[in-house]
Amino acid sequence: MKPIQVGLLGIGTVGSGVFNVLQRNQEEIRRRAGRGIEITMVADLDVERARKVVGEGVQVVSDARAVIANPEIDIVIELIGGYGIAKALVLEAIAAGKHVVTANKALLAVHGTEIFAAASAKGVMVAFEAAVAGGIPIIKALREGLTANRIQWLAGIINGTTNFILSEMRDKGLDFDAALKDAQRLGYAEADPTFDIEGVDAAHKATIMSAIAFGIPVQFDKAYVEGITQLSATDIKYAEQLGYRIKLLGITKRVDKGIELRVHPSLVPSKRLIANVEGAMNAVVVQGDAVGATLYYGKGAGSEPTASAVIADLVDITRLHTVDPLNRVPHLAFQPHTLDQAMSELPVLPMSEVVTSYYLRLRVADQAGVLAKVTGILADAGISIDAVLQREADEVGGEGSTQTDLIILTHDTREGTMNDAIAQMQQLPTVLAPITRIRKEELN
Amino acid sequence: MKPIQVGLLGIGTVGSGVFNVLQRNQEEIRRRAGRGIEITMVADLDVERARKVVGEGVQVVSDARAVIANPEIDIVIELIGGYGIAKALVLEAIAAGKHVVTANKALLAVHGTEIFAAASAKGVMVAFEAAVAGGIPIIKALREGLTANRIQWLAGIINGTTNFILSEMRDKGLDFDAALKDAQRLGYAEADPTFDIEGVDAAHKATIMSAIAFGIPVQFDKAYVEGITQLSATDIKYAEQLGYRIKLLGITKRVDKGIELRVHPSLVPSKRLIANVEGAMNAVVVQGDAVGATLYYGKGAGSEPTASAVIADLVDITRLHTVDPLNRVPHLAFQPHTLDQAMSELPVLPMSEVVTSYYLRLRVADQAGVLAKVTGILADAGISIDAVLQREADEVGGEGSTQTDLIILTHDTREGTMNDAIAQMQQLPTVLAPITRIRKEELN
Repeated sequence: MKPIQVGLLGIGTVGSGVFNVLQRNQEEIRRRAGRGIEITMVADLDVERARKVVGEGVQVVSDARAVIANPEIDIVIELIGGYGIAKALVLEAIAAGKHVVTANKALLAVHGTEIFAAASAKGVMVAFEAAVAGGIPIIKALREGLTANRIQWLAGIINGTTNFILSEMRDKGLDFDAALKDAQRLGYAEADPTFDIEGVDAAHKATIMSAIAFGIPVQFDKAYVEGITQLSATDIKYAEQLGYRIKLLGITKRVDKGIELRVHPSLVPSKRLIANVEGAMNAVVVQGDAVGATLYYGKGAGSEPTASAVIADLVDITRLHTVDPLNRVPHLAFQPHTLDQAMSELPVLPMSEVVTSYYLRLRVADQAGVLAKVTGILADAGISIDAVLQREADEVGGEGSTQTDLIILTHDTREGTMNDAIAQMQQLPTVLAPITRIRKEELN
Repeated sequence: MKPIQVGLLGIGTVGSGVFNVLQRNQEEIRRRAGRGIEITMVADLDVERARKVVGEGVQVVSDARAVIANPEIDIVIELIGGYGIAKALVLEAIAAGKHVVTANKALLAVHGTEIFAAASAKGVMVAFEAAVAGGIPIIKALREGLTANRIQWLAGIINGTTNFILSEMRDKGLDFDAALKDAQRLGYAEADPTFDIEGVDAAHKATIMSAIAFGIPVQFDKAYVEGITQLSATDIKYAEQLGYRIKLLGITKRVDKGIELRVHPSLVPSKRLIANVEGAMNAVVVQGDAVGATLYYGKGAGSEPTASAVIADLVDITRLHTVDPLNRVPHLAFQPHTLDQAMSELPVLPMSEVVTSYYLRLRVADQAGVLAKVTGILADAGISIDAVLQREADEVGGEGSTQTDLIILTHDTREGTMNDAIAQMQQLPTVLAPITRIRKEELN
């Protein structure tokens, strides 16, 4: 049978990986797919660089639309990124009847509804395993492996840059700025790391997983997003003493009133497997009502790990492209006509409605009665305390210090309630600095 | 559309789980599959018990063949187990044109070649996600999620009973017999635990994963199988001191000469995620050339976790049953006509040809020159030493003891070479007891 012909838009780090892995493992991939899969056309603005990667034998153009217009091309891989030209090209490829494979989490988290609708109308597939957690087949696990389950929640370390930084902060006792510099020097963080360190990248991925887990449309605009830039080595150290690690988690959870969708630093018990995921690695824990907790771990980025996911999508499409579209795996795991009703039944909740537990650190005057005042405010708000760690003033501020740190772990409470309590505590004259508040997830 | 009709053979622990989860989550499953999935007929020798589980509305019979003969039934689930009647029924269901879902690892590891050939000839699917690692979608990950990769090796904790026993031995310093009794009392080990503790169950699963990873037929008869019954609390403690945990691993690896396929206790560095998988949990690490290492973790047994995998297979079949069989995912991941040649190029190697590293414990006389003799034999055999731990005689045998333990970690060597060296060391008059040898895997 004639090989499946693939056109590649954008041959940077990931695109090169896709090309190289497809070449290197072509025999093995053919034995699996039942048919060869070949990149026959590449579009990149840097034609010379592209030519260097693919050699002769492959058509290289600067105009992506020439790839889409080529009637021989069965599948278009979009590796340009961003919402601009990438969106236009994906929609044009769909309109031209091409199946699309993309690693573009930002595009799908924001414009997924429009793109999947266009693909369904045209009867083509948009595959995006590479958009979440790189080479880990988490989209497949959620969409196909766990179909028996009512998913209850999932929580993931889905941004390698921030996990690398947090690992460095813990290992070496560094503050955020120093660890970021290390990460940039070692190539784990970009020159402009904003999307990573502010949690936006993780929120894109969490948004996509949330839709697939609960059968709702992608709703990036409703995600709560908080990055790691405010974290200090002090809090990482205190968390450790209390038996926790701090990770940037993408969390989505089904509760009675709706869906929680949030990215923020979280304390996680050190004994959980996911707490021990270090460096740039990714991992996602999924809790289903039948299977319990399952965890998926691996490299979340990089040339060949991401290529691994892109090529898995190519193989899936090669197998499924002759199938009646109604029998294919739905883009967002659930039949598309059911998503809107699910959204009305399961709205994404505002952060004030989220229920979780908290780590609080208060810089307080080292005098009698402070703890009573603080815990009194929490008690009045109905927030119960799980643990308190009060440091000796000398240890915190040096000999003769009159200030100390008061660390409190709470049980579950509504975030709105906690916000009010923090505002009250902040008013106390004995609370000497802005209160640090980090959420805590037991993940059990 | 009419629901897919499913017949269930054997409604014990897992069968009840399948029935209950399908009922409980029927709306969600329908939203995913695009069609209802209903168990309409159940066969079990204990008709009364079956009736209690399924209520009225479902036909209950004692004769499994009545299910297979029912023309309304699209899919048959086999949950009887074993090689006897289960094999006959699976082949009869295939002959009757039914798709089959089974959790029967023993059957597939031993008779898979015959069963998959029959299914291919008839154009039906035999799905078996539940046969390996319970609810973890590892078969799907290997067959579909990692198709880009040349798999290099995989290693799994794929028997919950033995992992529970090993966790107990480590936690509580118990020897094997005591930990087994605990496991039996708590329901983690059966009254006759032979298949679990001797490694046979893990070898069935490793055999299936080996075939899928490397594109070879199932070859259980060539697997090396060693259980955990000889392990002592002493070795677990020494391993811990050296930075390792002992796990029963199912390992399969592609090397130049062929395929390693083996189940045995292994030292694993404590810092590896898989070393921290405790209790009855399962986990599999897969090393692919593009993706690197990925890990999959979850419950490997139990009613609903296993049901989760069975139902995922039902959904897959519901989606794919109208598809041209050539476009379905091949049973063993690779096109069936390519398996035999792969087997001739990649034979399963005898254990003497396996290359790994070792932990050795020698009970020796506490006198000068013993270490020199022992290390001399290793050096002559070309086996290089990674670490030596020599205990004080007093610590080992009590005050005044004239015996001590000598623990040696080696670098990689051929098992045949190691066997010869051990035989020589065993001849030394200063070696006072049978030498303990446990293999060691760095998994990096």
